[in-house]
Amino acid sequence: MKCDVIITITLKEGMLNPEAEAIQRAIAHLGYTTDRLATADQFRFTLDAEDKKQAEEIARSICERLLANPVIHTYTIEVI
Amino acid sequence: MKCDVIITITLKEGMLNPEAEAIQRAIAHLGYTTDRLATADQFRFTLDAEDKKQAEEIARSICERLLANPVIHTYTIEVI
Repeated sequence: MKCDVIITITLKEGMLNPEAEAIQRAIAHLGYTTDRLATADQFRFTLDAEDKKQAEEIARSICERLLANPVIHTYTIEVI
Repeated sequence: MKCDVIITITLKEGMLNPEAEAIQRAIAHLGYTTDRLATADQFRFTLDAEDKKQAEEIARSICERLLANPVIHTYTIEVI
């Protein structure tokens, strides 16, 4: 079956994120006050799998072997 | 009130996305077949606003003036 997968990769709590800091400063220049700004990378794709469980296992393997760096990243997997 | 906002920015349909193509090829090298891989940038932050409606308006302004390029991007706003 075809499964739609959404992988979201974020920096672990406590990791420095200069991009987020820069964006928060830029938003402040627009006149808005934001707090705890975080960035995330999202990857969406369709996958051939036997069932949702297998699709999630494949997505987990893709995260651990390719998309996420386990030292600095956490990830969530959503199979639709 | 404090509102949590999630902004997701994607390339418009039909836009070339070499990053997505490279990732899809890399996943194929791992032995998995994926289809229609798309990437998105997500920004999450807390915002001070009178209500959810105002938070969404501020988020829309941030998208249009800073985060998204209307020529190539579409965006979704989620206020929690």
